[in-house]
Amino acid sequence: MAQQIIQRLCIIGVGLIGGSLARALKKAGVVKEIVGCGRNREQLEVAKTLNVIDAYDTDIQTAVKHCDMVVLAVPLGAMQSVMNQIAPVITNDMIITDVGSAKQSVVDSAMKSFGELPVSFVPAHPIAGTEKSGVEASFAELYENRRVIITPLKTSSKAAISKVTAMWKACGANIVETSVEHHDEILAATSHLPHILAYSLVDTLAKMDERREIFDFAAGGFRDFTRIASSNPKMWHDICLANGDALVKMIEQFSNDLQLLTKAIQSKDSEYLTQIFTRAKQARDDFCND
Amino acid sequence: MAQQIIQRLCIIGVGLIGGSLARALKKAGVVKEIVGCGRNREQLEVAKTLNVIDAYDTDIQTAVKHCDMVVLAVPLGAMQSVMNQIAPVITNDMIITDVGSAKQSVVDSAMKSFGELPVSFVPAHPIAGTEKSGVEASFAELYENRRVIITPLKTSSKAAISKVTAMWKACGANIVETSVEHHDEILAATSHLPHILAYSLVDTLAKMDERREIFDFAAGGFRDFTRIASSNPKMWHDICLANGDALVKMIEQFSNDLQLLTKAIQSKDSEYLTQIFTRAKQARDDFCND
Repeated sequence: MAQQIIQRLCIIGVGLIGGSLARALKKAGVVKEIVGCGRNREQLEVAKTLNVIDAYDTDIQTAVKHCDMVVLAVPLGAMQSVMNQIAPVITNDMIITDVGSAKQSVVDSAMKSFGELPVSFVPAHPIAGTEKSGVEASFAELYENRRVIITPLKTSSKAAISKVTAMWKACGANIVETSVEHHDEILAATSHLPHILAYSLVDTLAKMDERREIFDFAAGGFRDFTRIASSNPKMWHDICLANGDALVKMIEQFSNDLQLLTKAIQSKDSEYLTQIFTRAKQARDDFCND
Repeated sequence: MAQQIIQRLCIIGVGLIGGSLARALKKAGVVKEIVGCGRNREQLEVAKTLNVIDAYDTDIQTAVKHCDMVVLAVPLGAMQSVMNQIAPVITNDMIITDVGSAKQSVVDSAMKSFGELPVSFVPAHPIAGTEKSGVEASFAELYENRRVIITPLKTSSKAAISKVTAMWKACGANIVETSVEHHDEILAATSHLPHILAYSLVDTLAKMDERREIFDFAAGGFRDFTRIASSNPKMWHDICLANGDALVKMIEQFSNDLQLLTKAIQSKDSEYLTQIFTRAKQARDDFCND
């Protein structure tokens, strides 16, 4: 049997991400007890029936009591409220981590709720997910060979960092450590910008008179976009608010490049077009393995 | 045995699209003889060895001789030159069709080469393809249950339209008839714009200092974009030149919507963001079945 990393784990928000974490840790045999917490009792009951969690409590302060690890797996927009609620009961022995897709906003919330950054607080972000949501969609293998970015703070204790790292390693994830700021920039470029473009494109086309026909005709290219744009609207709303600065910077950079490309199309600038298309294909061929 | 639709078929440009058409027609048993034509003798030899074509000729005028069907499966940028070469030898009994992703430019080329639009000329566009190219990547099932858009001209004879339709039906394709102008608008929206966005995004990110890291971190969203942007650069160069007007119109529409979304992110306009993301997801859920 694997060595137990966590005695009592509280997962606040038992959806796809929180539920898959619970399943993975159980499968690895590294956690003794998992308590679920959330606002929706029915969903928690489902999670318990599915054996994703061992017990649950809708009262956050009761749920986190005696826990050595608390994972905040709620949407970014709910972080502040959850932190406000746990603030009175946290201790230095209670490691706190989260799964938010933007990190500076989570750190800002922690500062507001806790007054200072606890030594036990280590923000993290598993780069995994599907278009589905809810605990029913969760599965133990979600994090296998996926990256989890851990963004330790200057205040984070070595013990807390190792424990969060060990937890994600037990799920089969590959751990990357970076700064909060760098995380937010890289994610704005690789995830937030592509999603915004996909959402914006689907919206542009869905507003057209020929929308029925357009979606019917959707060939390879557009169909991929609609899939990207089918993930949780609430989550992307929260990401836009939480990582707005880095995201807007990336959108502006993209828009400038798109404008240059548009001008090249208008002026039939063969050389420029060839250069862009060849460079993009080359980058893909150089960097991606699938 | 199936009834033969075509006695002698000439495919000019035996790559993924032309090669797959040849394979599909052979498999369906609806063609007596297929002659390949192209500039690259080695590739034609490969096509013959693979039994995709029965014979080949690098001289276009010789290749099309005695053919009752000629399919122009060359890049859009090569259409004019190919049409110029066949112009002196075409007859009204020789049906001419093409597979170009933009149709007005092909019609314009035909006018220039032939002086008038031949009754035997019926432009078409199979909405199918993979990221691969070349005859080695061709396969008989490429067009099964895929749409082929046929854009008959006012000048096209009923006999020519039926024969082109029958050819694509024999490949298992679903036939849609529409006008040249409408084809170009719909394709600009559903295929050309998404590809341009994907190429532009990959280029924007490939230029960043952190490109190695960015491609490493590429989660679901961005990876799909890189795949879209990995198709044939020459083909997309030609499409941009051939369907520039419709494409630029769509880029402008998209850019306006993206600007509105950007402003909403900057001003933290929760309501607007929720509306866009929900509407896009709704459109996808309403219209797409996969």
